[in-house]
Amino acid sequence: MSGIASLADIRALLEHLPRGDDDAATAIAERQSRLTKPQGSLGRLEELVGWLGRWQGRELPALDEVSVLVFAGNHGVVARGVSAYPASVTAQMVANFERGGAAINQICKTVGATLRVIPLKLDAPTADFTQSEAMTEAEFAEAAATGYDAVPRHADLVCLGEMGIGNTTAASALAAALLGGGGERWAGRGSGLDDAGMARKRETIDAGLKRHQTHHADPLYASMIFGGRELAAILGATLAARRHRIPVLLDGFVATAAASPLARLQQGALDHVQVAHCSAEAGHRGLCAELNFRPILDLDMRLGEGSGAALSISVLRAAIACHLGMATFDEAGVDERD
Amino acid sequence: MSGIASLADIRALLEHLPRGDDDAATAIAERQSRLTKPQGSLGRLEELVGWLGRWQGRELPALDEVSVLVFAGNHGVVARGVSAYPASVTAQMVANFERGGAAINQICKTVGATLRVIPLKLDAPTADFTQSEAMTEAEFAEAAATGYDAVPRHADLVCLGEMGIGNTTAASALAAALLGGGGERWAGRGSGLDDAGMARKRETIDAGLKRHQTHHADPLYASMIFGGRELAAILGATLAARRHRIPVLLDGFVATAAASPLARLQQGALDHVQVAHCSAEAGHRGLCAELNFRPILDLDMRLGEGSGAALSISVLRAAIACHLGMATFDEAGVDERD
Repeated sequence: MSGIASLADIRALLEHLPRGDDDAATAIAERQSRLTKPQGSLGRLEELVGWLGRWQGRELPALDEVSVLVFAGNHGVVARGVSAYPASVTAQMVANFERGGAAINQICKTVGATLRVIPLKLDAPTADFTQSEAMTEAEFAEAAATGYDAVPRHADLVCLGEMGIGNTTAASALAAALLGGGGERWAGRGSGLDDAGMARKRETIDAGLKRHQTHHADPLYASMIFGGRELAAILGATLAARRHRIPVLLDGFVATAAASPLARLQQGALDHVQVAHCSAEAGHRGLCAELNFRPILDLDMRLGEGSGAALSISVLRAAIACHLGMATFDEAGVDERD
Repeated sequence: MSGIASLADIRALLEHLPRGDDDAATAIAERQSRLTKPQGSLGRLEELVGWLGRWQGRELPALDEVSVLVFAGNHGVVARGVSAYPASVTAQMVANFERGGAAINQICKTVGATLRVIPLKLDAPTADFTQSEAMTEAEFAEAAATGYDAVPRHADLVCLGEMGIGNTTAASALAAALLGGGGERWAGRGSGLDDAGMARKRETIDAGLKRHQTHHADPLYASMIFGGRELAAILGATLAARRHRIPVLLDGFVATAAASPLARLQQGALDHVQVAHCSAEAGHRGLCAELNFRPILDLDMRLGEGSGAALSISVLRAAIACHLGMATFDEAGVDERD
């Protein structure tokens, strides 16, 4: 158990983060150089197998236990007309996940991952951040602790996603607080806002930033003010994975924004993380650039629920299969370069 | 059997190409609109499932029989010092494929595809295109026929790749002949050329273009002059797949260049084709742009041997799984948009 009960507890967990295993990464690069292919010709597959091995602490990385965690929350800010869908859809989609009817269920099956959905007090939405902090410190800490404790200690990889009507507004406000710019820079159409909705969303973000401007310089505090419970849980889960040295795939815009306070608090705190795909949600490309992430996939997806993260598992499986299964130049009797 | 024995035979096969199944594509789009996700939020997964269904002629596309064909050839132009590896490597890699030691073997296993490797007279390289046509018409037609006949008639998807030391030089010259520009525009480092090798490669391409300038306006003739047997086979296989209405994934730069004469000869001739990934080989991004392809993956791969095409099968499998397995809004009792 995390024992997280306050912002200070999260700050304490961020001290002395474990580093990756340089020896494993070096051994992986050395083996890659002997496999029957031109140096570097598998591109990001080589990089990703090195990243997996570095954080798993293994020269021969594995993806036997892959955990997809989807956190769900509701947002008071929805009352401001910032989503194309009613808040009722959050709980309805959680039920859909539990019955196996959503995209994430199908994708998890095709990539061999275990899905767990964790609803966070769906009948008690966070407060409207234009009126007050979205959460109290105790509420924020509780959600972060739930995320922290949800990470299976022996997972080979954790994928983090979310569901929550209104949560791209929360994520946009959080990104704005951490990185500058307002609604104009960070608001996107989410699940399909029209132009009038976009105007309301931008205004809502700007109103929140204005109301809390003296407080949002602290990244964790900004997450408490703007982010919902599912964002806090993703932050906690990302931190737990680092403490257990488990590599993490973040899904799209909301998940990336949710984890970003860790990078602002501590340089290198997201070194165990890859962003799985570049969402079509407007702010994601810029957010990834700010955090120096290069997403693995770029397929115009903007569904959330961990779908892009789960899909990119297939790239990692292929990368590992090549690393483990390919013959070396010596073994295959293939001539090396002239 | 194709009966291809001449350029004229290929031209005849290009007449009256079958169109895709618009009804299947319409039914797929209609079903996608009822699934429990915001409209369009699966991005290219929705586009790709529509493309598969259109060419399979099915409202419920399938990927039960996926065929990866890798054609291999040798190139007289290698004598000009345009590759980092000796020509002996082509046959050695074919042996490696046959023993299961190459990247493509591992990737095919992870994505559930059947690999077939087809070496094309490896001990009789094509002629050096700076001295004469790379192939006679009979040689070209024979290689194209081999590719045509290699396509399994009942495949759900065909992935086309290649192996051939020196073949990025052939592909670059072919792209230049079809699209303009010379070695400067189209030459890349292939399997890892140094700067001196790059200079030789550019000069070789330009020398070939100069020698054959009165002939290369005809796309098929350009393919005969510059392309190797594996490129001709990919052209033939792409044409066969269209005739049988089988969707095709092309691998990287060489495969895309190989198929491109069909698009120059007949508008829409590559409508059944997707480019699977954007290769790190220099000319590929520009070639895809010229042909209006948007590659599915972009992972800095530049290995060839069908590796990027095979990897992207995993995206198609996820797309189909979502299409077949997701609940509709009605089934799941999820509210639609406000």
